[in-house]
Amino acid sequence: MAFGEIPGFPPGSRFEGRHALAASGVHRPPQAGICGRAEEGAESIVLSGGYVDDVDRGHEILYTGQGGRDPATGRQVHPQELNRGNLALANSLRHGLPVRVVRRVEGGYRYDGLYRVDDYWPDVGEDGFRIWRFRLVPLEEPLETGQVKEPTEGYDTSLRHMAIVSRIIRDTAVTRRVKRLYDFCCQVCGIQLITPPGPYAEAAHIRPLGRPHDGPDVLENVLCLCPNHHVQFDRWQFALTDDLALVGIEGRLRVQPRHVIGIEYVRYHRGLYEAAAAA
Amino acid sequence: MAFGEIPGFPPGSRFEGRHALAASGVHRPPQAGICGRAEEGAESIVLSGGYVDDVDRGHEILYTGQGGRDPATGRQVHPQELNRGNLALANSLRHGLPVRVVRRVEGGYRYDGLYRVDDYWPDVGEDGFRIWRFRLVPLEEPLETGQVKEPTEGYDTSLRHMAIVSRIIRDTAVTRRVKRLYDFCCQVCGIQLITPPGPYAEAAHIRPLGRPHDGPDVLENVLCLCPNHHVQFDRWQFALTDDLALVGIEGRLRVQPRHVIGIEYVRYHRGLYEAAAAA
Repeated sequence: MAFGEIPGFPPGSRFEGRHALAASGVHRPPQAGICGRAEEGAESIVLSGGYVDDVDRGHEILYTGQGGRDPATGRQVHPQELNRGNLALANSLRHGLPVRVVRRVEGGYRYDGLYRVDDYWPDVGEDGFRIWRFRLVPLEEPLETGQVKEPTEGYDTSLRHMAIVSRIIRDTAVTRRVKRLYDFCCQVCGIQLITPPGPYAEAAHIRPLGRPHDGPDVLENVLCLCPNHHVQFDRWQFALTDDLALVGIEGRLRVQPRHVIGIEYVRYHRGLYEAAAAA
Repeated sequence: MAFGEIPGFPPGSRFEGRHALAASGVHRPPQAGICGRAEEGAESIVLSGGYVDDVDRGHEILYTGQGGRDPATGRQVHPQELNRGNLALANSLRHGLPVRVVRRVEGGYRYDGLYRVDDYWPDVGEDGFRIWRFRLVPLEEPLETGQVKEPTEGYDTSLRHMAIVSRIIRDTAVTRRVKRLYDFCCQVCGIQLITPPGPYAEAAHIRPLGRPHDGPDVLENVLCLCPNHHVQFDRWQFALTDDLALVGIEGRLRVQPRHVIGIEYVRYHRGLYEAAAAA
């Protein structure tokens, strides 16, 4: 596995065809769109323009995972699972690894630099089957300080880039309210995480805010969680049943009488959980 | 307490003096630079240009906390503690609350909009005493989706803004290495946090990366922690002694023989911990 830039092939490098592209090491498989190992991460992807569900906004790519396609037409004929190349892209996010992005262009292929996987989720594609979507954004520049030094290690030796993986925590009147309601105790494990200025908790939106989920910022759609359970909830390690039992982990959810949780949001989140568990 | 914008006083509003500024509600105290309650958060600050340690880059303010100053000269004569207005600003970060920023300008004061506290740390000021530094940056715009709805609650009813508090997790070859070395188990509590694509841990830099700490990205300067202990370590709820015992929380640090932790980084972090604990 070779993550990061391939020496001799800076962004903008062009290739006549898949054979030259593979020979360069920029994207090694002769046909597949994703180069990677499921458990380790994805080295590179090719945006060939052949799939109806891909969206390429330049600074933001919505890449459709692999699997379930009719090779002849490129249309979905089965649901996709979070395995193989799809799992590799999920692991690129988990490990903060850079992904080389190659685009099909007039007369061949062009290497367009390093991106990182910013988020992923299951969706229903145009053909009516589950697809996995991966949002890729260009890798940020290294820190200003010039203090970033990468060791000479077996892999990514050429990688001076650093992925800045932000866990985005959005604070609003609603999220502050749910944290006060539970006195900053996690609804899953009950921990109240102490820090010098006071206890710390995070509000987790059950149906996520922002594209593509567009969940609302209302008390019915938030939980008060510790950072550990927030990570697991957001990545669909566990979910809630309609009567608010936990599935996927042990324990039970603590719910204050004044906190009415919206079952429609619970169902939306559980749908994502079930798609992730189908792998 | 009134967080967020004050109706009738949009950014750019000018005030002849502190009396008019106080009467508007934009910054209520007649003299103090910070308006807030220690446990709740800071409503507003005034950048008066009177303190040697303040830095105002417009899009980034390094604001010096209160306390320990000679009222006649504005110079530090005692160390500052993380209490009163300083604790209020720390709690603005913890709660994701917006802070109104007022600048002294030619002919009076100008309200310059909502900022958020992005980070804070103890430092040694120009006069040789400990000061608390608060980095404030302009509040991000609300989400694109238009789905952000704030309830009509007692406070911040006017606040349609949403603070996006990013917990920035930087991933590099070094941080990936420390996580592999511990198989994603937290060095403090031993937990291996499971997520569908695989276990999740975070690498914590002991002497932080980036300004102003400028710690190096080397294996000797990182720990493998779960998100909960990462939050507590970064906010100085606990620290390490020279022989790597934990101070501030129970337990002991698990250290692999191949992981040589740099004592100079441990001491730097403990200095921050001790300053935070001095409050």
